[in-house]
Amino acid sequence: MTSQKRGRQSFLLTEPPVITHWASIAGKKESQGPLSHTFDLTSQDPYFGQKTWEQAEKSMQQKALNKLAEKAHKKIQDFSLVFSGDLLNQCIGSSFSLRNTGIPHLGLYGACSTMAESLLLASMAVGGGFTEDAVAMTSSHFASSERQYRFPLGYGGQRTPTSQWTVTGSGAALVCKTGNGPRIRGCTIGTVCDLGIQDANNMGCAMAPAALATIKAHFQDTGRTPADYDLIVTGDLGQLGKEALLELARLDGLALGGKLTDCGTLVFDNTVQDVHAGGSGCGCSGIVLCGYLLSRLNTGKLKNILFCGTGALLSPTSTQQGLPIPGVCHAVWIQGGKE
Amino acid sequence: MTSQKRGRQSFLLTEPPVITHWASIAGKKESQGPLSHTFDLTSQDPYFGQKTWEQAEKSMQQKALNKLAEKAHKKIQDFSLVFSGDLLNQCIGSSFSLRNTGIPHLGLYGACSTMAESLLLASMAVGGGFTEDAVAMTSSHFASSERQYRFPLGYGGQRTPTSQWTVTGSGAALVCKTGNGPRIRGCTIGTVCDLGIQDANNMGCAMAPAALATIKAHFQDTGRTPADYDLIVTGDLGQLGKEALLELARLDGLALGGKLTDCGTLVFDNTVQDVHAGGSGCGCSGIVLCGYLLSRLNTGKLKNILFCGTGALLSPTSTQQGLPIPGVCHAVWIQGGKE
Repeated sequence: MTSQKRGRQSFLLTEPPVITHWASIAGKKESQGPLSHTFDLTSQDPYFGQKTWEQAEKSMQQKALNKLAEKAHKKIQDFSLVFSGDLLNQCIGSSFSLRNTGIPHLGLYGACSTMAESLLLASMAVGGGFTEDAVAMTSSHFASSERQYRFPLGYGGQRTPTSQWTVTGSGAALVCKTGNGPRIRGCTIGTVCDLGIQDANNMGCAMAPAALATIKAHFQDTGRTPADYDLIVTGDLGQLGKEALLELARLDGLALGGKLTDCGTLVFDNTVQDVHAGGSGCGCSGIVLCGYLLSRLNTGKLKNILFCGTGALLSPTSTQQGLPIPGVCHAVWIQGGKE
Repeated sequence: MTSQKRGRQSFLLTEPPVITHWASIAGKKESQGPLSHTFDLTSQDPYFGQKTWEQAEKSMQQKALNKLAEKAHKKIQDFSLVFSGDLLNQCIGSSFSLRNTGIPHLGLYGACSTMAESLLLASMAVGGGFTEDAVAMTSSHFASSERQYRFPLGYGGQRTPTSQWTVTGSGAALVCKTGNGPRIRGCTIGTVCDLGIQDANNMGCAMAPAALATIKAHFQDTGRTPADYDLIVTGDLGQLGKEALLELARLDGLALGGKLTDCGTLVFDNTVQDVHAGGSGCGCSGIVLCGYLLSRLNTGKLKNILFCGTGALLSPTSTQQGLPIPGVCHAVWIQGGKE
């Protein structure tokens, strides 16, 4: 048996797949943030050499995949399977980046939870023996997101204090059956939670209930506790969403024991970068995981983390129709490479 | 070992998961077509009792899930996992249908290949022991698709002769570890193919190369041949895409031996329903599989089919930017319940 189902939402991997390599590509603002030194490539050109923001996103995913292949001493054609998704309508960042590469591809939509969702599915595919290796990949771009979800940048709209800044970046992780590196020990699949938040400029608070539900389910299903983790990393609730999650957990009697941090609060320095409530976007948890977190897990500075990708499952259409914002959160238990 | 990887893109399931139940919900035009008698529920109200087309799509998925639960003598809360996706931006049909149900959910984007993609992932999740059961579900709606991809219906735009008619419907299939019903014997994961077709009103031809690539890979990887199948069912190339696939296969020396049919040509009677090149949309292969095909497999009228979901991975933005239309196709080998 390669896996053990635990409780309603979780499974443990009896032969834990290994994240052998990872790569991160980041934009200009991200390169000015506190995690700058952890990214493999940064670009000062927001178009990444392309003509449009959407094609820039395609290019970032291509660069992430190429960098990953380079680090793994492979050709990209050697990758057996790619799980990927992004925020663009119809996920064109992901599909265009893989055009005619010949790499088997399964497309995902989990909004900003996609890094965790793709990692979870890659661990299923590898852990279950369906493939030797699988890449988990995602991206987001500030400018393509602003014009798709909110206003074209040229309009010069003012962002509200509760809004988050979509990270321009792409992260990719290679999950293998064997090898050296951090291991995926278990996963908890999220449910769609909706507490009625309707403010599309306050997505952190809309996602916080989903994060709590999944973190609670993880502990309940696996019998583990916050004490078993060095960090519980949500991505990306931002400053307000993180505070909301802490308050919801407190009301619920769940003590997170000071272990909670959030990719959206890690990626920018809000005291000088003026990003309001922090970072967001699939690329946010993508580059924080595939830059900062996996490196620290690999060197043993972190031993166990619960990586909780959070997604706001809204669309501009649902917002315009006055509907609330459903959230989802998938959690992946990653164990450091050195014990 | 629960699975055997075969070749570059395929795997076989050594303990084949069983599709124990299936449900299909269809709209008015579909209820007037030749497969009308195979659907569980049809509605003459295109809004399905909701205020918007998008919410109608949510409602269709809810009805499909409820019907599936009813047929399986379960409550929907008993389902362990749902893989689903749709054509709406940010897949709001899928996420809104599962709000606050407490069912673990993994969201997909594979355009019209989603029924096959969700079935493939459900077979991985069940076959690998990660869950006891999983639902594969999808939907599409003519009116929500027209206004999102093309023009609002009120504009009265003329459809081109090569265009396909998006099916209004939702299909859901329950994949279990054990039970009675058609079994999933193997899957072939598609690659993103792009031969440069730029006409967004001729998606059948844009997807045909991807269908050929996956069908070829399936035969190459598994050693099986068209003679091993009663039907090779693409969904949804439509009339023109099906002809393009036959021609591409002929040029490639692959004889499909008269086994090819297509969900887009099965679901409507083009001689009286005026749908131009046939049906399309995630719901097209969804309701043809979860209505007509699985019933025939279950009664033994079909013994083995290769169900090949085809998706056009374009977005209105990529089309407006003058980009070609990438296609993808995932194939699932389903064996009839009675031998």
